[in-house]
Amino acid sequence: MNFLEERIIRDGNVKEGNILKVDSFLNHQMDIQLFEQMGEEFKKRFADANVNKILTIESSGIGIACIVARHFGVPVVFAKKTQSLNLDGEMHIAEVESFTHKCKNQVIVSKKFLTEEDHVLIIDDFLANGCALQGLIQIVESAGASIEGIGIAIEKGYQLGGRMIRNLGYHLESLAIVDAMDAVTGEITFRDNATALEETE
Amino acid sequence: MNFLEERIIRDGNVKEGNILKVDSFLNHQMDIQLFEQMGEEFKKRFADANVNKILTIESSGIGIACIVARHFGVPVVFAKKTQSLNLDGEMHIAEVESFTHKCKNQVIVSKKFLTEEDHVLIIDDFLANGCALQGLIQIVESAGASIEGIGIAIEKGYQLGGRMIRNLGYHLESLAIVDAMDAVTGEITFRDNATALEETE
Repeated sequence: MNFLEERIIRDGNVKEGNILKVDSFLNHQMDIQLFEQMGEEFKKRFADANVNKILTIESSGIGIACIVARHFGVPVVFAKKTQSLNLDGEMHIAEVESFTHKCKNQVIVSKKFLTEEDHVLIIDDFLANGCALQGLIQIVESAGASIEGIGIAIEKGYQLGGRMIRNLGYHLESLAIVDAMDAVTGEITFRDNATALEETE
Repeated sequence: MNFLEERIIRDGNVKEGNILKVDSFLNHQMDIQLFEQMGEEFKKRFADANVNKILTIESSGIGIACIVARHFGVPVVFAKKTQSLNLDGEMHIAEVESFTHKCKNQVIVSKKFLTEEDHVLIIDDFLANGCALQGLIQIVESAGASIEGIGIAIEKGYQLGGRMIRNLGYHLESLAIVDAMDAVTGEITFRDNATALEETE
């Protein structure tokens, strides 16, 4: 097990309704030292990538993205989910349909901060069906920028998002891939993730 | 002028409707090196504060808070504005009324992550009328935690929030205090902030 898997076992909680609660260290309270480890690990896994910008989406991706950005020495752009008054000028807007909630969401980035000159590493905390990620990819592609990689903290491997993204040929690295979890016993099964780790070490 | 004031002059834009656009480095695209300087500066200004947790609010406060947290070696908790499915358990909820928009907003933090043992530094990107900040203060007080300080990137000094918070006795430090700005000429006038800087250097 790697450091994130160990932390999920120690402090995560499986709840009814396909919920993995990691709010004590990842997406409500945030353990910055853990994020630093994640930054180091992503830097190893994307060692060959030529990255000049990190893209994430509000809210829970922002903290991880900012700490990871330190390890790449690049700025972060975070996509917004609703149009704000202050976002004047032209914007990239992706409409994504949620699989689980019957609603459409928007993913919005100012055209000023994503152009064909950008080499983007996408960072987010969770990947399940991948709706948010699809919106981010759509936006990068429509900006003419290139996607150098996608780094995820926790992937729910039994949902469709990860497979679809890999099938499309993107370099997707998830630090912990949950293949099964049981709300009754609390047991969490991780996919063997060691190969990816060894390749970069 | 300090580093943030210089950056605001260089890359900020004053727009009609009391808008200071700093989205190229602060709240849409985020300059992580600038955030590091802000972290160093807050660490100086709150050198005597006994801080074990940083509290901020989604979304644009999160990035700054995470980088500032590195300089204090503490975790970050970010308050949510809407109740999410995953936030089970008991929550601190503050209702705050917006001065500018005719609506009420909620500020929500899980009771697990804010208790009477916590010594909190509140960090946010902007302070104008201070509604969000009032909600955060309300939540810290209701948790029985103590507020060791409040660190803001940009304060609109001609609006009421900062004066009110200082009148209440809180140790509020804003890295740049805008006393006036003109959408026609683009001119921005900063309050003399040097005293606070010298005191801690």
